[in-house]
Formats: sequence, C-alpha cells, structure tokens
Amino acid sequence: MTIFKATNIVWHDNHLNRRDRERVLRQQGCTIWFTGLPASGKSTTSFTLEHDLINRGYTAYVLDGDNIRHGLNKNLGFSLEDREENIRRIGEVARLFADAGIIVLTSFISPYRKQRDFVRKLHVAAGLGFIEVFVDAPAEICEYRDPKGLYKKARRGELKEFTGVDGPYESPIQPELVVKTVKNLPKECVNQILAYLLENGYLKS
Amino acid sequence: MTIFKATNIVWHDNHLNRRDRERVLRQQGCTIWFTGLPASGKSTTSFTLEHDLINRGYTAYVLDGDNIRHGLNKNLGFSLEDREENIRRIGEVARLFADAGIIVLTSFISPYRKQRDFVRKLHVAAGLGFIEVFVDAPAEICEYRDPKGLYKKARRGELKEFTGVDGPYESPIQPELVVKTVKNLPKECVNQILAYLLENGYLKS
Repeated sequence: MTIFKATNIVWHDNHLNRRDRERVLRQQGCTIWFTGLPASGKSTTSFTLEHDLINRGYTAYVLDGDNIRHGLNKNLGFSLEDREENIRRIGEVARLFADAGIIVLTSFISPYRKQRDFVRKLHVAAGLGFIEVFVDAPAEICEYRDPKGLYKKARRGELKEFTGVDGPYESPIQPELVVKTVKNLPKECVNQILAYLLENGYLKS
Repeated sequence: MTIFKATNIVWHDNHLNRRDRERVLRQQGCTIWFTGLPASGKSTTSFTLEHDLINRGYTAYVLDGDNIRHGLNKNLGFSLEDREENIRRIGEVARLFADAGIIVLTSFISPYRKQRDFVRKLHVAAGLGFIEVFVDAPAEICEYRDPKGLYKKARRGELKEFTGVDGPYESPIQPELVVKTVKNLPKECVNQILAYLLENGYLKS
C-alpha cells in the first residue's frame, strides 16, 4: 500500500495528453489494418505480430471475427448494410484502441476500398496512424489452402457472396505495406511490419 | 533495426495467453464501471484515475460520452431500445479492452441495474474482472453543481427522462466500491480504487 502514500493527485477532466501517454508506453497508438482474400494469411500474420510485439514489451491486440462477431457485432447479419456497419464499428473500436496508445491489429477480409478508406479517414481526422497492410497471396493458393473449408462450401453454393468466389475483392491501391505470405517466410512478413513501425516512430526502442 | 535481427518468430493463430500478457504489462485487464447521477463526479474520478495509473506506468483508458457517442454509437438515439444498445456496445468494447490487458474505465450514468448486470455477466463469462464503482453524491448536491447546466434544462422541460429529474436512477446493491465525492477528497477516492486494484491483483507492483 505504501507506494500509493505520497501521491499528489490533482483533478483531471480529460485524457492524459497523447504525448505523455506515448512516452510511458514507449509506443504510438495506431491501427494496422490487414486486408486480403480468405485464407491469405491475415489471421496468422496478425497474431504472430501480436505475440512478437507483446514479448518485446509493447502493447498490442488483434481484433478479428472471433472477438467481434460473437460480441459487439453479434446483432449484425450479412446484408450489404450490415457489412458496412460491421466495418464501421470495427473502425471506431480500432480508433479507440489507437487513441488509448495501443497498437491494434485488425484481421478482416474488408473487401471494399470505400470501407477501408472510410476507416482511414476516421483515423486521419483524429491524428492517429492508419497502416493498411495488403496480405497478398495468389487467389488459387488461398483456395487451395482453404483451412476452414469455406471456399469448398462457396463452390458448392452453400455460402453466398463469398469473397474470392462470387464476391468481389478490391485490392488496395496504395497500401502502406504489402506482405507476400506465399513468396516470403513468415518471419520476413512480420519483420517487414516491425521495421515499418520502428522507422515511422510507432515503436520507441 | 538490429534489435529485430536475431528473432525466432513462430507462427501463431491466436492471442498470446492472458497470463503472459499480464506478466509483460504488469497488470490484469479489467473494467472499472463507474455509475452515478449526472454531476456526481464520474468523469473527474475516472480521468484522475487514468492519469494516475498511466503516470505509474500502467495502461488505462477512459470510455465516456465524448469518445463513444460521437463515434461508435453515433447512430444511436435516446429511445429505450437505443439506450440499451448503447450500454451493450460499451460493455462489449470494455470487454475487448479488458481482454487486451488494459484497465478500462467507463464513465456513464448507466442508471439501470439490469444493464449493468448484463455487462457484468459478459465479463464474468470471459473470466475478466468487473469492478462496479458507485459514485455516490447526494442528489441535491449534484443538481447544485450542474456544471453543464443539464439539470436546469431538464427542470425547464427541455430534456426528457433526465436521470435525477424525471428519469430513474437505480443505485447498485452490491458494488465492489462506493466512492463519496462530496464527503471525501478527490485523492481519497482515487486512492481507494488504487488500493482495491492492488489488493485484488489487478496491479502488480
């Protein structure tokens, strides 16, 4: 208890300013937005990066279908309107994490340029970093990998508007990074992102 | 760049386990849910605690009307249904922050027991701490303080169903903590919460 004794607490009515927060956390909050075809490697790349960042003492967190669709967005379906609201909410939550000084990684197909640009604008308007990472793998290889059997289901017509089969995927025009999960080794993809974060001041060494 | 050279990265497909995350962050993620009448001192108490935690090297973040109503929940109005959805989403976002290892502080009137209990259950089901803090100040003093002039507006009939005037407030029955912002000094309220966090293992010294 003693460590709390000598404190001089003054009243505050707003967030600690971002610079002080960053200094203590040794990092600048930002959103790393992974986008790519189903089975392109978004999830594995983002979780591997999360592990690596945390093990280096940084604070990072992955938002993905598992923790979003079963929670915050469980009242959304798959209509175009609901898909838009899905990405909008994810974008807003990512912005909150980034504002909190966290490096937040989002792992969603997010096939539409317009929606990704919307989230980018949210971040830019708040003075927060938005790093779009195109997880680039040839469509045939993604379909061949098919770890969850979703491509097969879509080919059998059991899934409608499945990205890469009968749903469009609009690849990014000017993403901050492109990682090639087939051509490069896993650790090369992650190191590529780490190098970007370091070079751009998101991570303080 | 050199610090990234010797890394042995292995593939991961899921979050770093909570224990490892907590060890690195020196804290256990949890939600501190402030509830109380308008002008009872929720905002000031939560922001003062946020400052104090971050300055001690912990990671904390306040969710409040400013960053939620203008972002994630800007498509919600004030019908009963929308108020429920408002608290549901805040509860889900708080759970994500807590899962990320952050100490998240929520500063909303949240007048209904049922809604607060819903959020508590979300946390308990996920094995995450939920600390309900009743910000207790006499109604007359809250109305006298009225920093934003909202009580006055409500008395003039310009705001409907305003908690404390013509809207109910159901105080917690068994909150983890009660802070008395009139009787006690600011720093006593914050130290009371810090002591609770330390005693219950949320903060590692």
